[in-house]
Amino acid sequence: MTYTASIGALAALLTTVAFVPQVVRVIRTRDTHAISLFMYLLFSLGVALWCVYGLLLGLWPVVVANVITLALALVVLVLKLRGN
Amino acid sequence: MTYTASIGALAALLTTVAFVPQVVRVIRTRDTHAISLFMYLLFSLGVALWCVYGLLLGLWPVVVANVITLALALVVLVLKLRGN
Repeated sequence: MTYTASIGALAALLTTVAFVPQVVRVIRTRDTHAISLFMYLLFSLGVALWCVYGLLLGLWPVVVANVITLALALVVLVLKLRGN
Repeated sequence: MTYTASIGALAALLTTVAFVPQVVRVIRTRDTHAISLFMYLLFSLGVALWCVYGLLLGLWPVVVANVITLALALVVLVLKLRGN
């Protein structure tokens, strides 16, 4: 893997893994008051489109990273909807 | 722009714009309790690396989208840090 590709892989890893502590927090506390419903609606739709984009171009790292991110964002979204 | 490129552009737009309602919410309410500090730390670092990746490859849409996302994520991060 080239230097640039490694930076891209680390960037993808971080922006995906970042949602884990948010998911853990909302599951533990059941507090979603400060979280924007509209953010998670737009973000989930955007990440789903990144999955489609990756599938269309056969970019498997893009697909895998975004499927995981989508799953995590949907957990936050569902708990936000339940909390409302 | 091809069909696939349009999907990528829409995906990038949505995952960037998604942070606007979250920024508006934390500025208005000053409530960041449910927001994970660790999420915004990891996410901001990841988005900063996406900027570096875009710069190294000369992918300007990647740079622009991620600079905007970084600015928005940093607003949430700073307000979270102030709220703690």
